[in-house]
Amino acid sequence: MAKLWGGRFAQESSNLLDNFNASIVFDKQLWEYDIKGSKIHAKMLLSIGVLEKSEYELIIKGLESISEQIQKGQFEFKIVDEDIHMSIESALIALIGESGKKLHTARSRNDQVALDFRMYVLDYNCKIRVKILDLIDTILFLAKKNTDTIMPGMTHLQHAQPINFGFHLVAWCASLKRDYQRFFDSFERNNFLPLGVGALAGTPYKNDRDMMAKELGFKAPTLNAMDTVSERDFALDMLYDISMLLMHISRIAEELVLWSSYEFKFIALSDAYSTGSSIMPQKKNPDVPELLRGKSGRAFGNLMGLLTVMKGLPLAYNKDTQEDKEGVFDSVKTTMISLDILKEVLLTMKIYPENMLKMAKIGHLTATDLADFLVRKKNLPFREAHRITGEVVAFAEKKGVDISELDEEEIFQITSLELVGIKKVLDTRASMNARDSLGGTSTGRTEEQINILEKWINEEKNGQAKTNH
Amino acid sequence: MAKLWGGRFAQESSNLLDNFNASIVFDKQLWEYDIKGSKIHAKMLLSIGVLEKSEYELIIKGLESISEQIQKGQFEFKIVDEDIHMSIESALIALIGESGKKLHTARSRNDQVALDFRMYVLDYNCKIRVKILDLIDTILFLAKKNTDTIMPGMTHLQHAQPINFGFHLVAWCASLKRDYQRFFDSFERNNFLPLGVGALAGTPYKNDRDMMAKELGFKAPTLNAMDTVSERDFALDMLYDISMLLMHISRIAEELVLWSSYEFKFIALSDAYSTGSSIMPQKKNPDVPELLRGKSGRAFGNLMGLLTVMKGLPLAYNKDTQEDKEGVFDSVKTTMISLDILKEVLLTMKIYPENMLKMAKIGHLTATDLADFLVRKKNLPFREAHRITGEVVAFAEKKGVDISELDEEEIFQITSLELVGIKKVLDTRASMNARDSLGGTSTGRTEEQINILEKWINEEKNGQAKTNH
Amino acid sequence: MAKLWGGRFAQESSNLLDNFNASIVFDKQLWEYDIKGSKIHAKMLLSIGVLEKSEYELIIKGLESISEQIQKGQFEFKIVDEDIHMSIESALIALIGESGKKLHTARSRNDQVALDFRMYVLDYNCKIRVKILDLIDTILFLAKKNTDTIMPGMTHLQHAQPINFGFHLVAWCASLKRDYQRFFDSFERNNFLPLGVGALAGTPYKNDRDMMAKELGFKAPTLNAMDTVSERDFALDMLYDISMLLMHISRIAEELVLWSSYEFKFIALSDAYSTGSSIMPQKKNPDVPELLRGKSGRAFGNLMGLLTVMKGLPLAYNKDTQEDKEGVFDSVKTTMISLDILKEVLLTMKIYPENMLKMAKIGHLTATDLADFLVRKKNLPFREAHRITGEVVAFAEKKGVDISELDEEEIFQITSLELVGIKKVLDTRASMNARDSLGGTSTGRTEEQINILEKWINEEKNGQAKTNH
Amino acid sequence: MAKLWGGRFAQESSNLLDNFNASIVFDKQLWEYDIKGSKIHAKMLLSIGVLEKSEYELIIKGLESISEQIQKGQFEFKIVDEDIHMSIESALIALIGESGKKLHTARSRNDQVALDFRMYVLDYNCKIRVKILDLIDTILFLAKKNTDTIMPGMTHLQHAQPINFGFHLVAWCASLKRDYQRFFDSFERNNFLPLGVGALAGTPYKNDRDMMAKELGFKAPTLNAMDTVSERDFALDMLYDISMLLMHISRIAEELVLWSSYEFKFIALSDAYSTGSSIMPQKKNPDVPELLRGKSGRAFGNLMGLLTVMKGLPLAYNKDTQEDKEGVFDSVKTTMISLDILKEVLLTMKIYPENMLKMAKIGHLTATDLADFLVRKKNLPFREAHRITGEVVAFAEKKGVDISELDEEEIFQITSLELVGIKKVLDTRASMNARDSLGGTSTGRTEEQINILEKWINEEKNGQAKTNH
Repeated sequence: MAKLWGGRFAQESSNLLDNFNASIVFDKQLWEYDIKGSKIHAKMLLSIGVLEKSEYELIIKGLESISEQIQKGQFEFKIVDEDIHMSIESALIALIGESGKKLHTARSRNDQVALDFRMYVLDYNCKIRVKILDLIDTILFLAKKNTDTIMPGMTHLQHAQPINFGFHLVAWCASLKRDYQRFFDSFERNNFLPLGVGALAGTPYKNDRDMMAKELGFKAPTLNAMDTVSERDFALDMLYDISMLLMHISRIAEELVLWSSYEFKFIALSDAYSTGSSIMPQKKNPDVPELLRGKSGRAFGNLMGLLTVMKGLPLAYNKDTQEDKEGVFDSVKTTMISLDILKEVLLTMKIYPENMLKMAKIGHLTATDLADFLVRKKNLPFREAHRITGEVVAFAEKKGVDISELDEEEIFQITSLELVGIKKVLDTRASMNARDSLGGTSTGRTEEQINILEKWINEEKNGQAKTNH
Repeated sequence: MAKLWGGRFAQESSNLLDNFNASIVFDKQLWEYDIKGSKIHAKMLLSIGVLEKSEYELIIKGLESISEQIQKGQFEFKIVDEDIHMSIESALIALIGESGKKLHTARSRNDQVALDFRMYVLDYNCKIRVKILDLIDTILFLAKKNTDTIMPGMTHLQHAQPINFGFHLVAWCASLKRDYQRFFDSFERNNFLPLGVGALAGTPYKNDRDMMAKELGFKAPTLNAMDTVSERDFALDMLYDISMLLMHISRIAEELVLWSSYEFKFIALSDAYSTGSSIMPQKKNPDVPELLRGKSGRAFGNLMGLLTVMKGLPLAYNKDTQEDKEGVFDSVKTTMISLDILKEVLLTMKIYPENMLKMAKIGHLTATDLADFLVRKKNLPFREAHRITGEVVAFAEKKGVDISELDEEEIFQITSLELVGIKKVLDTRASMNARDSLGGTSTGRTEEQINILEKWINEEKNGQAKTNH
Repeated sequence: MAKLWGGRFAQESSNLLDNFNASIVFDKQLWEYDIKGSKIHAKMLLSIGVLEKSEYELIIKGLESISEQIQKGQFEFKIVDEDIHMSIESALIALIGESGKKLHTARSRNDQVALDFRMYVLDYNCKIRVKILDLIDTILFLAKKNTDTIMPGMTHLQHAQPINFGFHLVAWCASLKRDYQRFFDSFERNNFLPLGVGALAGTPYKNDRDMMAKELGFKAPTLNAMDTVSERDFALDMLYDISMLLMHISRIAEELVLWSSYEFKFIALSDAYSTGSSIMPQKKNPDVPELLRGKSGRAFGNLMGLLTVMKGLPLAYNKDTQEDKEGVFDSVKTTMISLDILKEVLLTMKIYPENMLKMAKIGHLTATDLADFLVRKKNLPFREAHRITGEVVAFAEKKGVDISELDEEEIFQITSLELVGIKKVLDTRASMNARDSLGGTSTGRTEEQINILEKWINEEKNGQAKTNH
Repeated sequence: MAKLWGGRFAQESSNLLDNFNASIVFDKQLWEYDIKGSKIHAKMLLSIGVLEKSEYELIIKGLESISEQIQKGQFEFKIVDEDIHMSIESALIALIGESGKKLHTARSRNDQVALDFRMYVLDYNCKIRVKILDLIDTILFLAKKNTDTIMPGMTHLQHAQPINFGFHLVAWCASLKRDYQRFFDSFERNNFLPLGVGALAGTPYKNDRDMMAKELGFKAPTLNAMDTVSERDFALDMLYDISMLLMHISRIAEELVLWSSYEFKFIALSDAYSTGSSIMPQKKNPDVPELLRGKSGRAFGNLMGLLTVMKGLPLAYNKDTQEDKEGVFDSVKTTMISLDILKEVLLTMKIYPENMLKMAKIGHLTATDLADFLVRKKNLPFREAHRITGEVVAFAEKKGVDISELDEEEIFQITSLELVGIKKVLDTRASMNARDSLGGTSTGRTEEQINILEKWINEEKNGQAKTNH
């Protein structure tokens, strides 16, 4: 069909092309950023004398009227307009006539889409960060209540050493904090204005890019026009940050699934966040954690997808780049709801401290304490102590008891070492609290970690006003 | 909200869960397969005495009425129904009452979704294969007309040896033929009926799976119930097959982009399949090949996404698996339109044989012919001939001419070898036709390859009736 | 440094280039295929009169002598030779002089590397298939002994229905059988001879490619020279087949890790295939399953890597393609050892049937049996039966017992339905055996599945001679 | 074989396990970091009284002696030692006896490997940054000499607007600068000490982690022990940063390949960084850029691989994590040499400004100038001007000339507009210099961009001392 750019074309574009080529079906969700950007662009054109005051006002009014139509669902996005930029521009021309045709002076779709999409990405970068803080807040709320809730700390999914549940939850927070920081770093690295670089080489107008950057909340304009229309680093950074976040969440989700099983029974998910079976009436399924675990797949896929698209592209803008959006939209949407629902799942789940404790007493979890005791009290080298403890464990295994159930005499029989007070050392809670080094699991150290995180959250919450778009 | 499976639940599911969990937004496109499957399931239930004849007829009528509603756009897909299976089942119950509640006997959503999705995948496997054949047909049509159109054959994007354009096009077909075969192999490997395995362990009814397999066009029922509800190999195979196809298309697309450039000018895309610039009025952009090149990204991403989802999942069904569909739907849709539009682009593009020929005469493309001549006529070892030819090329370079423009005397001066008839050997067309070994570029060999492919296509077209779902 | 191809070059290549460019460090492991291919190529050159009998014999002797040197570790692979092809060719020339320089007639490194690498891939395709059969054999050996070993069948990692352990093991075999078939299909699809297509366009010699194909065990020569030197489908197919296999193994591994945990205690890995902790003397870690689970990562990565490399490459050969080998070598090596060690782990692990049985009695696993009973005996619609059963389960939960422990009277109190014989129906073993439909878990059906697989293995083992390279 | 941790094991580990499980084959390259870490750990043990002064001195001497042996290639890395940590520890014990057995007090292999690998990653993060600065330096050196070298600026690989070559080179630098910043951000985000957290829960010793952090150049100790041994964010960040860098380099490489082709002839690579063909004596192949383009594949693959490994892993340490290293080693090695060789290729290539200029005059590159002229001088809305210009271009096309070759009269005939001075506006160099907005291509603006980058490099070079490990 006939196009705004069709001047030199002998034939009109085919319908098949229109369908294949058009991005309007998905990029319409950028409308708000497009209008925001156009308003500032118009203001700049006014300031450098390209627009008359009256033209400027017509344009602003026109854009605001279009904005209203869209919000009310009265705006028709047509495939023939190709994309959101053409969509709004042709609606503007239809609405206000000749002045509308002046808006596209000193800009190109190449810098326009770079602006709109970057604004979207930076905006959701902030929104996601707010949700990450909320999630950490929720987890800390649980952690504070459980700094003395004993559970088996695991490595290789084998019981290793007794820890408290709060400490485990703080481990989740530590990874989420890095995610937060990663989003923040990406924000700072990409918070530069693309608008005003034209198609690839700048424009012959005296574009005031500093003013536009300031008005739109960017740190500064980008450095080089050609790079600006060619690069999609900001989108890739977003896809990577989300991949990392959802990878961390997949690990949390795996634990929720495990802990909800009959074998573990550490927790029970709320009915409100569980589902049933269409055939097995007794089932209560942890669908939400399972889906959260699976969501990492699409996040990784979207990242790999855009990396592939960008590989080997010559400068400057190529149409391949249009493939940047759907994956980002999908990853962003997934992230927003995942953070919401994980928070609710955690808030509403039931914890079974008695089951956790029971399991902490199976598997000789305090064996390391015996080894450390041998080091400190008997001055044995650790390697030696480790070997001896191994034999004690083997003995307990054969006897069918946990190492914590052995008494001094039995240990003496095996090791020929008199270990006064060893019974107390092998106690589960004592063992947990003995790990009192910086970063360790003792109740005190766990509380210390919680305090540090809470302080950090408060600082970030206060600071956000400054960094948000 | 209240659910069909909600019997033992104390609380209703939250809205957030319904939104996060429901697949109805995307799996509704499986409706046709769901109804088809339910009809056969009902027929089987009738045959083993679970349904009365009258109940069976009510169910069939009900399903057909729902089918009509959907086709007319009058059916409401509700998020509370979670998925297409529940959607149709609850509509059926609302429509025909108690008998509807009998339909879910001897099956589970686990085998039902495995059936619906597999039918979708196998169906589109066939549809894509038809389109691949069409595309090859189109390319061969072009190839036949260009078996004497000389162009520079390249390696490393450097002129290497003269070839004909038809030969280059046949190379494309050869890769598409493998794609076709890969889809076919996947079809055969996965053409087994999942229905009738229940939730994970079979059912206590005498499910006649052989009958259902036959009626639905499957080779046979699957072997093991647990594997059947757990595996998504058929979907992964589809994603991989598509990735390979779109990878091959990305290579074709790259060449179309290169050839359309001012530097190459081997072809011009039709206006109907090109686009313009919003700022540069002289531009004619190869958007379609660029997008085709970029589409490989989402195909790879969707494949990586589902591989990630499946990694490390214990048996049997887990909710993570629900993440299998959107990527497949996206890859399939992309493939269908890509094959259509590529065909049109090729049919409508203009070829510039004179530019191809001109470039074939730059870069000493017939140097290998000189080397081969030295081997055959002067009985030199190839390595020796290669070395001498290198020197002749260096001489021609210095003189600023192509090696084909040198005469016997000049060559004699450099090599001290009398080479009678060498001038003719160094001719571009002669060189092309000299490569007359099996699979080579000579006009005759190219025609041979075209014939082989045409014969194969005809066989496949006739055979399809048998393999299609 | 000075090169065989350096005729026209004014400068020698830099050391940095030699290091960056050379593939000899890794492609030297193709030496056996390179020599095999060269011998047949020489034989063909003899048959078309390019080589004298005496030259041919010299070449064969020379190649055999080089082969011996390599086997004895006396051959020096030099970086200046770039790759295995140049390495062997220049050694041959050094060894036998002028005749050696004739070997490279009518071929190019482009078809040579395509041959060598394809032979490697097809060879290991067969080797891997043999190992897959071995692994299935081993699993079936275990399965046969456990067709009456009750365990909880799970969906969503929640107890679902009672199954037998043999049935679960057969599910593993079903996925491995598809893997086997996938390798086989790839083998057939790619078993074509690349040799004899020259650099990209064929050769002016009368290459007898049919003879070479036959002698080297290929089905036929490839169709088109340009496609042949450009494509790496055979390598990608290998990487995908391996990704699928290792994905399936990651799922088996996940279950082994779970089952070895204190919470499950379904199995114990042998000491010979477990490891300890450097600090916790009591630990016994399932390192092998964990690593097996993780190996899927590198397989997916290698696949993604080569897909990326091939994306958007114009025809014909480009140096990027050299990046095809390391990933394949790595995936192949990983697969070979993974299949070996998984087999050993399974053979040596201890099973705890009593723990499996105990867990099968927790979680109302026979609830579906109650629902099905209501359908069959009371003629209730399944949906109605499902709802009622949900209430019975809720009652049992409240009472703190398993549904199988309820008696007729209690059920009557809740449902007002007289259910004669229900107690027996709710028995765990009876429930397992009740799932007697095709593909189901009953002991009989499980044995049936084992028989089918054993028959298939025997056929494959006999057939292999024909398909192996 | 017998192990340091084998105390409780009844059987020795199998050879197959040793081969599958051991990481010593690749993690031996961490030896330097391992020894460095052990020395500080010993110092800390001394400070808290676990070691006597004399034991400490023995250990340090022992470690230094091992360090020397390794450097001299006299150290045997044995597979039975599993990994670099056990390797060095058992060598130490063999060397100094009992005191050696004390070194492993208050630490675990879990925190030890987290330390070693993190030090490696942070160290190479710095090394790569130094090389990125060097590369930018080199590119700027070329850019400065070419700020008036006219070439066709492209979008969609179609001539778009005239730019200067220096401006294009600056675009490369802009992306490399973001890469540098991304590495820097990752460094800062991950520069925390893992050592001293024990196996997963801290230790019962008073580990002075602050001291160790300070001595080893970390900002501070990590927050939570469990997170510390479980997470591999630092490795993933490295793999992503490298993927982005190599993706950008793949784009540069693509342009070098294009520009070296006969069709473009914008540049010629030096013989020292080109290769020849084994069969076509005239060929000069851009192998280095091609390989650089392909290297992105392995980078993406390594990233995908580790993301897959981490997906869904429960806390804390799992053996799967051992799969973190090979991919990082491979990506790092690839990056180091890629940056070196790209720099050399750029420094030694020849530029053909006359060919660039010639092509800049083909394709109506100054059409936008005409449109902008109509806006500024005739006060037409841009959309109107764009349409008119389209018609002028169509006219020039038909006439077979470039738009810049039309004169005022001809334009008047088509547009009915008198355009005094238009001839000068349509001049290629004038057009380039007209794009004088911030970030634009005019010689002045290009120089401005170069200055900004040079200033930044100098600051970074001075600042590096502070940030390097």
